[in-house]
Amino acid sequence: MGRVVHLDSERRSDRRPTLDTLRNLVAADLQGVNRVILEGMQSPVSLIPQLASHIIAAGGKRIRPMLTLGAAQLCGSGGSRPIKLAACVEFIHTATLLHDDVVDESSLRRGLETANAVWGNKASVLVGDFLFARSFQLMVADGSLRVLAILSKAAAVIAQGEVAQLVTANDPETTESAYLDVIKSKTAALFAAACRIGAVVADRARAEEDALKSFGLNLGIAFQVIDDVLDYSAHQATLGKSVGDDFKEGKITLPVILAFLRGNGEERQFWHRTLEHLEQRDDDLARAIGLMEAHDALRDSVARARHYAEMARDALGIFPNGPVKSAFLDVVDFCIDRAY
Amino acid sequence: MGRVVHLDSERRSDRRPTLDTLRNLVAADLQGVNRVILEGMQSPVSLIPQLASHIIAAGGKRIRPMLTLGAAQLCGSGGSRPIKLAACVEFIHTATLLHDDVVDESSLRRGLETANAVWGNKASVLVGDFLFARSFQLMVADGSLRVLAILSKAAAVIAQGEVAQLVTANDPETTESAYLDVIKSKTAALFAAACRIGAVVADRARAEEDALKSFGLNLGIAFQVIDDVLDYSAHQATLGKSVGDDFKEGKITLPVILAFLRGNGEERQFWHRTLEHLEQRDDDLARAIGLMEAHDALRDSVARARHYAEMARDALGIFPNGPVKSAFLDVVDFCIDRAY
Repeated sequence: MGRVVHLDSERRSDRRPTLDTLRNLVAADLQGVNRVILEGMQSPVSLIPQLASHIIAAGGKRIRPMLTLGAAQLCGSGGSRPIKLAACVEFIHTATLLHDDVVDESSLRRGLETANAVWGNKASVLVGDFLFARSFQLMVADGSLRVLAILSKAAAVIAQGEVAQLVTANDPETTESAYLDVIKSKTAALFAAACRIGAVVADRARAEEDALKSFGLNLGIAFQVIDDVLDYSAHQATLGKSVGDDFKEGKITLPVILAFLRGNGEERQFWHRTLEHLEQRDDDLARAIGLMEAHDALRDSVARARHYAEMARDALGIFPNGPVKSAFLDVVDFCIDRAY
Repeated sequence: MGRVVHLDSERRSDRRPTLDTLRNLVAADLQGVNRVILEGMQSPVSLIPQLASHIIAAGGKRIRPMLTLGAAQLCGSGGSRPIKLAACVEFIHTATLLHDDVVDESSLRRGLETANAVWGNKASVLVGDFLFARSFQLMVADGSLRVLAILSKAAAVIAQGEVAQLVTANDPETTESAYLDVIKSKTAALFAAACRIGAVVADRARAEEDALKSFGLNLGIAFQVIDDVLDYSAHQATLGKSVGDDFKEGKITLPVILAFLRGNGEERQFWHRTLEHLEQRDDDLARAIGLMEAHDALRDSVARARHYAEMARDALGIFPNGPVKSAFLDVVDFCIDRAY
């Protein structure tokens, strides 16, 4: 795998795509988001801010709130509303992460110990619930029933996707379509909502709202596919996440699905043994990566991701060129470029 | 302990108080609630209705939605809004139960195996999240920002109370005040909100809204204290819940707090050993109940509950006498009477 090829006419430089273009554009508002987040997670029950700050302040990429802020800016809206709603989006995301910790027993996230490992299942569930409720309180204070409808729907869809993932878990015969349905729900729905509400607060026409929703949805799909590729990539180590977490859990992601479909009977036995029955030996992860490489499963997963990335780019077509649009295109490139 | 003494001038009969007076008054609407619940938990992901129906259709007492329906009726409101909002309240309650299953590892609830025991932690967390989100979707469809504010606040307070309970868990030196704070949050807040929104949909004056909130809050406290008493009462077995669950988990409830405060040094060592260090022997539950009886801890916990029940009764003072008010007073009596 080599250097990512940029197809964007607006960006021909040789620098690697980065989230910083967008981050710089929304920098002041993003500080506001961080303030709202810090305020929102306060509670007389000190374990709540303590645990929440562990996961929030540890500072993920903040990609979702940046999308809300960027979308609002793209639609000509500013002020405090997008800031508060961007914080709502991050709260929902954080609640999902906390509940995912319970679910996946993942040992490392963002290079820190998970909240779960430190405080236990109970606290992760309950603090997640608190942040989720807090998010709705913030939306209610904002007062837009449309925003409330979009984000409560997204929250339901996310939960539904996580349950669907649970049901198909450990089955290497999961179809690519079933996988796509799951990641659309569990990841892309919130990306879509995050972008869409930027247009809603700006009171823009439905076409722009739909365009931003489509941008977010496709970006989210690309983002998740690449995330799943990274779990089998040596590159991953540099991101502070351990390689092979998905493998250890028997999680069925696109690279697995492609390698399974393209594999022979003996190889399929291997996938059944390691992912379905979770009977894993020391060198099995290496063999899994070897099989993926033999069948171009990682390369082609990236190609699949690129397909959605292209749809995300084109979704922005109705917006005139300008700094935010250009920064959004950079985000698309960044999502794909992470794979290299 | 003998027969409960009824102080209510409106009810002098010798029959035992029951939820049926209220249930009969709201029977038609309650069927509507059940329909909304069944519809709301549908999902193409079949594990969701499967698991949700296990806990919802198993049919708790439906006390919370009945309170919403009753409060709306007391305030002269009818139609579909109270039905939908009563379903929202039950969804929030169910989500809490599902998450509580993860948290408490309780082996029996309502005489059935917990969802957790059947489908595992993961599913309980995620289906709880789905129902919680669904509840907000229903509220958004109803369109009242005031209702949304009340129930999102309640949801945050519940989570906060559950976390506070986690923090004080297994500490027999927990004060009665700290215990009260926890049960106000984790139980009474939703009772209060359930009653209050009945007045909100009826567009009644703030005084009536506040009266119903106070009724629900105090009823909820009384309800939870009695619930905690029942966990040490032989009577419990008839309710399909196993006695001693709280003891096994080392949960600090009012009977424990009173027995600890009134006990001598050796007894306090017993409470520390069994509840804090969870070193329990076969005859420890019997000894715990023995100590509670020796110190009148169960009797006096009921007396404490009765205090809140009296406040709940008086909170209804501003409403004229009538069938719903009378049924609400029956609910109060029922909550206390369960202890006998």
